[in-house]
Amino acid sequence: MQPLVLTVAVAAVAPSLHDNTGDIDRLKKALAAQGIAVTVPLGRLGEIAANFRKAGFKGTAVINDLPSGAVLVDFLEKPPATLPAMALDLGTTHLEASLINLIDGRLLASGNRENSQIEFGADILSRIHFAAKGDGLKRLQAAIVATINELAADLAGLAGEKKENIRALAVSGNTTMVHLLLGLDPYHLCREPYIPLVNAPDLFAAAEIGLALHGAAPVWVMPGVGSYFGGDLISGIVASGLDQQEEICMLVDVGTNAEVVVGNKEWLIACAGAAGPALEGGVARMGMRAGPGAIEHVEIDPQTLELRYRTIDGGRPRGICGSGIIDLVACLYLARIIDIRGKFRRERCPARFVETPQGAGFVVAGAAEAEGREPVVLGQVDLDAMMRSKAAMYAILTTLINQVGLEFADLHRIYVAGAFGKHIDPRRAITLGMLPDLPLATFQSVGNSSLAGAELVLIHRADRERCRQLMNKITYLELNVNQEFMIRFSGCRFIPHTDASLFPSVPVFD
Amino acid sequence: MQPLVLTVAVAAVAPSLHDNTGDIDRLKKALAAQGIAVTVPLGRLGEIAANFRKAGFKGTAVINDLPSGAVLVDFLEKPPATLPAMALDLGTTHLEASLINLIDGRLLASGNRENSQIEFGADILSRIHFAAKGDGLKRLQAAIVATINELAADLAGLAGEKKENIRALAVSGNTTMVHLLLGLDPYHLCREPYIPLVNAPDLFAAAEIGLALHGAAPVWVMPGVGSYFGGDLISGIVASGLDQQEEICMLVDVGTNAEVVVGNKEWLIACAGAAGPALEGGVARMGMRAGPGAIEHVEIDPQTLELRYRTIDGGRPRGICGSGIIDLVACLYLARIIDIRGKFRRERCPARFVETPQGAGFVVAGAAEAEGREPVVLGQVDLDAMMRSKAAMYAILTTLINQVGLEFADLHRIYVAGAFGKHIDPRRAITLGMLPDLPLATFQSVGNSSLAGAELVLIHRADRERCRQLMNKITYLELNVNQEFMIRFSGCRFIPHTDASLFPSVPVFD
Repeated sequence: MQPLVLTVAVAAVAPSLHDNTGDIDRLKKALAAQGIAVTVPLGRLGEIAANFRKAGFKGTAVINDLPSGAVLVDFLEKPPATLPAMALDLGTTHLEASLINLIDGRLLASGNRENSQIEFGADILSRIHFAAKGDGLKRLQAAIVATINELAADLAGLAGEKKENIRALAVSGNTTMVHLLLGLDPYHLCREPYIPLVNAPDLFAAAEIGLALHGAAPVWVMPGVGSYFGGDLISGIVASGLDQQEEICMLVDVGTNAEVVVGNKEWLIACAGAAGPALEGGVARMGMRAGPGAIEHVEIDPQTLELRYRTIDGGRPRGICGSGIIDLVACLYLARIIDIRGKFRRERCPARFVETPQGAGFVVAGAAEAEGREPVVLGQVDLDAMMRSKAAMYAILTTLINQVGLEFADLHRIYVAGAFGKHIDPRRAITLGMLPDLPLATFQSVGNSSLAGAELVLIHRADRERCRQLMNKITYLELNVNQEFMIRFSGCRFIPHTDASLFPSVPVFD
Repeated sequence: MQPLVLTVAVAAVAPSLHDNTGDIDRLKKALAAQGIAVTVPLGRLGEIAANFRKAGFKGTAVINDLPSGAVLVDFLEKPPATLPAMALDLGTTHLEASLINLIDGRLLASGNRENSQIEFGADILSRIHFAAKGDGLKRLQAAIVATINELAADLAGLAGEKKENIRALAVSGNTTMVHLLLGLDPYHLCREPYIPLVNAPDLFAAAEIGLALHGAAPVWVMPGVGSYFGGDLISGIVASGLDQQEEICMLVDVGTNAEVVVGNKEWLIACAGAAGPALEGGVARMGMRAGPGAIEHVEIDPQTLELRYRTIDGGRPRGICGSGIIDLVACLYLARIIDIRGKFRRERCPARFVETPQGAGFVVAGAAEAEGREPVVLGQVDLDAMMRSKAAMYAILTTLINQVGLEFADLHRIYVAGAFGKHIDPRRAITLGMLPDLPLATFQSVGNSSLAGAELVLIHRADRERCRQLMNKITYLELNVNQEFMIRFSGCRFIPHTDASLFPSVPVFD
């Protein structure tokens, strides 16, 4: 463990007429004697020197362990019990964060907030366009900074700390979100050849972008590989350990974008593509993010057609999250309530269908049992979105695996990451033809690995160095111009697939 | 030559679908291929990326060569003809500065300004006291920053540049001036055991203290050794080359403080003490700094008592500068117009004396010939100040040389620095008993070596490294508590000395 901000006990000889070394130089010398060469930012000089004197020239130095060298940022009389740092998964729709104690690596608090940039555009593309207009970029940056400040205050409050005592921030996000956070023009991100302004920004001070954390808090931004392969996936690699495996493994991170990496400790190849919002619970009316009232698990008896569901908190249902939709659609298929093209077969159970302004809808939870008496209904539109998402997902996986001359059976393990990965039942995803038909033991959920990676870099220098090295190790396959992908995508728009032999474990009807 | 800010020609491969490296990362890679690893500050990312793109991914990188690593701060389409940087001698009463072209090391402009902090206190001690009251420190900092900004504008104007294009600043000043410039509390500087807050501040951005130079301009502050041994003297060592000599040499820098170093490339020992303002031309009414109308040279015929003088610019006299006072007092002694205690002997030439509110005064230039019809008059008060200054000077030199078990005759060379050193006639200083009675060839004027050192560090990395190493090489002898110094000081308050045998070349009257 060598955290991004660390503490070092120091005791220096007190000054005298025979040793007139300056306060700061004295402190530097005492640290140098322990093998730690530091610089001191001008803005911290006065306070550090005053604290050092007041403490009698001994106490605890607080040091930012930056790639460019150690920076002395504080001096405390006593070793602190906590040194809070924030890890952040900077999602397009949601932010997930945790507060970590850098002294022992323990979790102090967790929280999440909606990305307030949504008011300027629901998806990445609309935000890139918004950024190009007038002071759009500035407003987008201000919005996300405000959200992060609020989230920091949430976490600090939960941990009984002040947000101004948060000593570091590690951010893991897609390339666009990182550009917007840093106030960098995202113009070229969505234009061929899709070049980011920066893949791996150097560390900077939180205050530089208006983050109201500790005045000397450094911000680590997880490096990305391309416009559609962001730091969130580098986080995933680090968190899953894909880059340290002897055997060939795959990492699948599904949000609005599906990002996939395959490889081992020798090589890594990656690609990413739009999967649509369905898998993030972003589909019409009834879609929602995993949270209280979200239906996360569904079962339908293929004979009786009895439907049972479970919400995340056990409360009344308010909507359905990504894993719930996968369950639901897979069960609808197995119960033959939808056909292989993902179209409703109302005749199978007319009683469960209602008319909505958008057409017929399948009632997952009726008004009587639902929160606020708002029934949870799956429409054909939602279903179509889900079909596109699952098709994109499998097309991406097959394109990539084919690119390296492998077959799915060659994979030792598939790490499933993202909010999607946390609760998903791989059996159901296989039924849909979203994940390859492999033994269930192949699949391993790694939860929110974007956040987990951000936590790791806060705590371990080795992981920080690893991230930087990973960038150069990954070969990135651009799908936006890949013909093979488009062809495969069409073949995937059936349940489980046009080529059912790819999914021997899934029953094929009609 | 490896300047503090340097330019490097770069040509990168243009981005494509098969090479989606980010703009900044692309530029970093191209520099890395030349062996230059850089970081890029967040505040510069956007502009650099935009310039790099606009220039077609080739052009000139501008890099700050900091001790903590190279920092990419700009990208230009064409190699610039000039890259101006400012060297500054930050004096207590005056600032001297030059503008250097970092492309070729040539001088672009020179200038000077009065230190506007004078309004808050004429000397260092009164400013330290002022800094302790309310927002005193802030006001002192604001005043000096304003003066430097004005001086930067002066220089830029002379060179046909904008001050916002000044790419770096190197500052050489005494420890108190450096503290005040950096906004650091100088409280302990004048209190036993006289410990600075910092000897060697790390580089910082000019903008951090409100300097309106280029946004990425770094500020190099010449490191000091103690509260009374500042960066100006380290500059002097570097400029004179004292630290590279085989033979033992001495450096004498005289301003309000007399600072002395003796040593060679093996060892260096230094001390400093107050010499009073006399030698900076800071004595009552008629004292002035070297400048237009300043009498810099005086001769008096010992027989006829005819007095001749020369002003710096050949114009009408307005006052008398340091070297002029030394000349004058030495000549007054040789002409027996003052006695060995430095007291007027009016009877020797009653006609040259006038009555002033402060008592009798010797007329150096009468109203008829003087600028503005204000006669230039030396009073007994001025003479007494001069006697104290010269006594302090010689006492410091002897204390130091004695400390290392040497005699003056062991010195190969004495470098005389400061405004004092520029025009002084060593013969006259020997007559006064201010400098040791050595062959004239021993003395070598090095001009304003504080400024010269600042210029060197702007241009040569080797000199920047040398400054940092020098700090640790110098043994500093604290005179403020040195009994020997006080005893010697008393013995020096005669012309040339109570022990006239020390000055065989000087005639003794009485």
